Amino acid sequence: MSQYRVLIDANDEMGLVHKISSVFFSHNLNMLSNSEFVDKENNKFFMRSVVDGEIDFKSLEADLIKTLPSDANIKLIDPKKKNIIIMATKELHALGDILIRYEAGELDANILAVISNYDELESLVSRFKIPYITVSHEGCQRLEHEQKIMKYIDSFSDVDYIVLAKYMRILTPRFVEAYEDKIINIHHSFLPAFIGANPYKQAYNRGVKIIGATAHFVNNNLDEGPIIAQEVIHVDHAYNWRDMQSSGRDVEKVVLSRALKLALEDRIFVYANKTVIF
Amino acid sequence: MSQYRVLIDANDEMGLVHKISSVFFSHNLNMLSNSEFVDKENNKFFMRSVVDGEIDFKSLEADLIKTLPSDANIKLIDPKKKNIIIMATKELHALGDILIRYEAGELDANILAVISNYDELESLVSRFKIPYITVSHEGCQRLEHEQKIMKYIDSFSDVDYIVLAKYMRILTPRFVEAYEDKIINIHHSFLPAFIGANPYKQAYNRGVKIIGATAHFVNNNLDEGPIIAQEVIHVDHAYNWRDMQSSGRDVEKVVLSRALKLALEDRIFVYANKTVIF
Amino acid sequence: MSQYRVLIDANDEMGLVHKISSVFFSHNLNMLSNSEFVDKENNKFFMRSVVDGEIDFKSLEADLIKTLPSDANIKLIDPKKKNIIIMATKELHALGDILIRYEAGELDANILAVISNYDELESLVSRFKIPYITVSHEGCQRLEHEQKIMKYIDSFSDVDYIVLAKYMRILTPRFVEAYEDKIINIHHSFLPAFIGANPYKQAYNRGVKIIGATAHFVNNNLDEGPIIAQEVIHVDHAYNWRDMQSSGRDVEKVVLSRALKLALEDRIFVYANKTVIF
Amino acid sequence: MSQYRVLIDANDEMGLVHKISSVFFSHNLNMLSNSEFVDKENNKFFMRSVVDGEIDFKSLEADLIKTLPSDANIKLIDPKKKNIIIMATKELHALGDILIRYEAGELDANILAVISNYDELESLVSRFKIPYITVSHEGCQRLEHEQKIMKYIDSFSDVDYIVLAKYMRILTPRFVEAYEDKIINIHHSFLPAFIGANPYKQAYNRGVKIIGATAHFVNNNLDEGPIIAQEVIHVDHAYNWRDMQSSGRDVEKVVLSRALKLALEDRIFVYANKTVIF
Repeated sequence: MSQYRVLIDANDEMGLVHKISSVFFSHNLNMLSNSEFVDKENNKFFMRSVVDGEIDFKSLEADLIKTLPSDANIKLIDPKKKNIIIMATKELHALGDILIRYEAGELDANILAVISNYDELESLVSRFKIPYITVSHEGCQRLEHEQKIMKYIDSFSDVDYIVLAKYMRILTPRFVEAYEDKIINIHHSFLPAFIGANPYKQAYNRGVKIIGATAHFVNNNLDEGPIIAQEVIHVDHAYNWRDMQSSGRDVEKVVLSRALKLALEDRIFVYANKTVIF
Repeated sequence: MSQYRVLIDANDEMGLVHKISSVFFSHNLNMLSNSEFVDKENNKFFMRSVVDGEIDFKSLEADLIKTLPSDANIKLIDPKKKNIIIMATKELHALGDILIRYEAGELDANILAVISNYDELESLVSRFKIPYITVSHEGCQRLEHEQKIMKYIDSFSDVDYIVLAKYMRILTPRFVEAYEDKIINIHHSFLPAFIGANPYKQAYNRGVKIIGATAHFVNNNLDEGPIIAQEVIHVDHAYNWRDMQSSGRDVEKVVLSRALKLALEDRIFVYANKTVIF
Repeated sequence: MSQYRVLIDANDEMGLVHKISSVFFSHNLNMLSNSEFVDKENNKFFMRSVVDGEIDFKSLEADLIKTLPSDANIKLIDPKKKNIIIMATKELHALGDILIRYEAGELDANILAVISNYDELESLVSRFKIPYITVSHEGCQRLEHEQKIMKYIDSFSDVDYIVLAKYMRILTPRFVEAYEDKIINIHHSFLPAFIGANPYKQAYNRGVKIIGATAHFVNNNLDEGPIIAQEVIHVDHAYNWRDMQSSGRDVEKVVLSRALKLALEDRIFVYANKTVIF
Repeated sequence: MSQYRVLIDANDEMGLVHKISSVFFSHNLNMLSNSEFVDKENNKFFMRSVVDGEIDFKSLEADLIKTLPSDANIKLIDPKKKNIIIMATKELHALGDILIRYEAGELDANILAVISNYDELESLVSRFKIPYITVSHEGCQRLEHEQKIMKYIDSFSDVDYIVLAKYMRILTPRFVEAYEDKIINIHHSFLPAFIGANPYKQAYNRGVKIIGATAHFVNNNLDEGPIIAQEVIHVDHAYNWRDMQSSGRDVEKVVLSRALKLALEDRIFVYANKTVIF
């Protein structure tokens, strides 16, 4: 007997839970946990269930499709390690936190590779027996640089998520579209405050008493993709911007790892540039 | 069209969601939100739904009873202002916070009365046109004192919750049993740390860096009832115990008001000396 | 024997603590607590001391002036209740929190009056025996409206702080300049995010996972004055903007009361559009 | 020109700041930051200064000793990397966090070695070129086991701190006394709640809504040494005790690293089984 995850979203109408649970029942599946949310404003239904039993995937999917409205999105998931690729530049705190979780067996993922435009982190990554690829951006156009990265990414048959662990370069629309809702970024501010460059300097100059970090999916508008997780810490006048940066790193790594965990557990719906998280 | 709350708990078995949602469907009720949790360890099922539609209470209840196992607890709730009685002693911060929310129309409750063993708070309470009853404990036995209070409480036909807003006296088993799962207390520590008298002095002496407060239902073991809500704040060496007490008051009032809100919204299941909160 | 507060800021130079503590010593004053901070970037020195002893104010001030560089700002404070005026509109949560603290004797202040452009809050305020003045903005120009308010404020001989407890109107430069570093506002967002109107709607539309509030001194650039205190709470997809607003109120009142307490305890230096808080 | 740290504690008397700052002034030292605290209850004075200038250590120390009361403790510190030894068992999250900070150059310390009673963590530690010593406790008495560890520790000429990064064995008084105020432990609960074994199971059984972690110096009463840092996170009914343990690990590592940072920056006074932290 195993546990499976079922994620369904659809335009709301009466009886959706009834219809879905009827299909589960007819397949002898027990619902271990179930979260449902209806966005009344947009008339949108979201449901995530964990079910217990022996599943015939094809037959279950066929029955759900038959029962649910045609606009419904249905995902049946047999939980297994997802494949992720990490992109970084030179900073190692967020990457390091992921590596330690990986080593501890806490991360339900295979790290296929770490890609960076510098080789500074190679020493660390290679200790964890993870391929490290340096794709230098020097002397090549942005598109050309990304094309090299994409070629490498696409050499893997199945990549679930691309995690930007402080990858400090802007991605082109072409790249972003190629991996829609698959790119998770950590931004070093409490978005939408301090969009753009040097958020800690901006925060210092503004004299804020709290700094934060935001993990979000990447879309074409820089720093404006759907937010997955945010966290903050208190600072005071004695912090210069480098102190804020240093304390901020602790928040960044916590938030990125939390967002990655939510993604790996299939808890996130992306919708209307927002996320529904169960 | 109105919204209703349905709370069901039962021993877990396959198909409960299916059965419940079938009944809702047959009554033309739309499930607006739904939270479900199965405690695998105790094989216990909990579900809270908000449904939308026109309800025939008797018929709906009959159908649910017919469909569900005989051990199931079923609550159909037409949300309306609940009736609460507040008990206090001399401290006004937690009581005051409730009064201001009441004045603002934020509290989905009628405050039937405030009962205290002193008259210090009468001036404040009477400004809000709420009956204030002083039942002095002086010169009378504990049981006699409580009997007077109970007589007053029982003079109301319907009391949903008794809120101990810093009522600084221990209640007897007789009192507690009379209002099982109806008495909400705020304890001025992060339980189970610093059980008993003078928690802030205990916390100061222990040199803690965080203090907290706990809202819980009262049962016969003092400070050991099911926890509803907890919150904390950071302190440091510069706080003496009175400073901790003063800062702690801010946490106490926040936690008590949060717990009361959860109760008024019918979000709490009490179970195995714990709470399930949706 | 009493306790006094001494606040000094000056351009930094070697020996300032030595000079100041020498003067204290020569006046037989014991330093109970002392906080010092040097902003190296701006070469600025800040110090707040609490001293214990019998003070001859004139003589102590004269000695400090003689000893310290001519640019130094020196404040000798005999702690006593400060005089505050509260400005509000219709919302009562932030005002109510202050009133309850006032009633509890927690607020080291006299509330001289509450001024509003509506009369909705009069009933509440009058219960606390505090003058309530309605200065309607209807049918009069902004400057004229403010002039009436200023006339009333200036009828008091000594006003230490003007607290905007959700006063929902923009103040003119004339008003702001008249009470420089005396006006404390609560803004219903985590500044600088969501500057301007309807921050909770903005936050909802952006899909943030945390909302916050900011207490700040008011200067001529709306929402851009020196920040005193900030706090946040977590929200999720199930919050619509009204839920965010409702939860946000709890943060707003906490932050405003915290900022007011810091001001009443003379803990804030304003400087370079920031605050140094000891 | 360099920065130095000066930590002084003494029985309080009038003029201590004056005396100390006079000595600094006579040595041409500028006070960059200064924190002072007087514990009135115990009549105890604490001060931590950062001074800037050229120091003649011997002469400065001599002058301070001459000036201050004979009971004063004076520490003049030329900030340099401290030497630490880490003790662990099998869990790698807290250790891993320290290793990543070490690799990032964030940790102002040399890690002399990691000692464990198992060899599970050797693979990880050796990747960071840090000596890993397995001292198995099997087949030997507690005192004998500790003696082996102490012998190894004492083979280093200078060990500033011993960090117990989830070292799951109780230390004997002999061990603790040998390294007084040098052993930093992370306890997996919000002390003093859930002292003893299996705190997450205890927390789960109590139905708490918040779990925490505590970093403290170790003294002879297990879990009762002076607290350095505490942090918490919210949990709910859906967490079984393993989920609490898993989430708790994130708090543990944060708190231990924070406490270690405070120690490495010489910010902690230990006193009356408490800490004063500047």
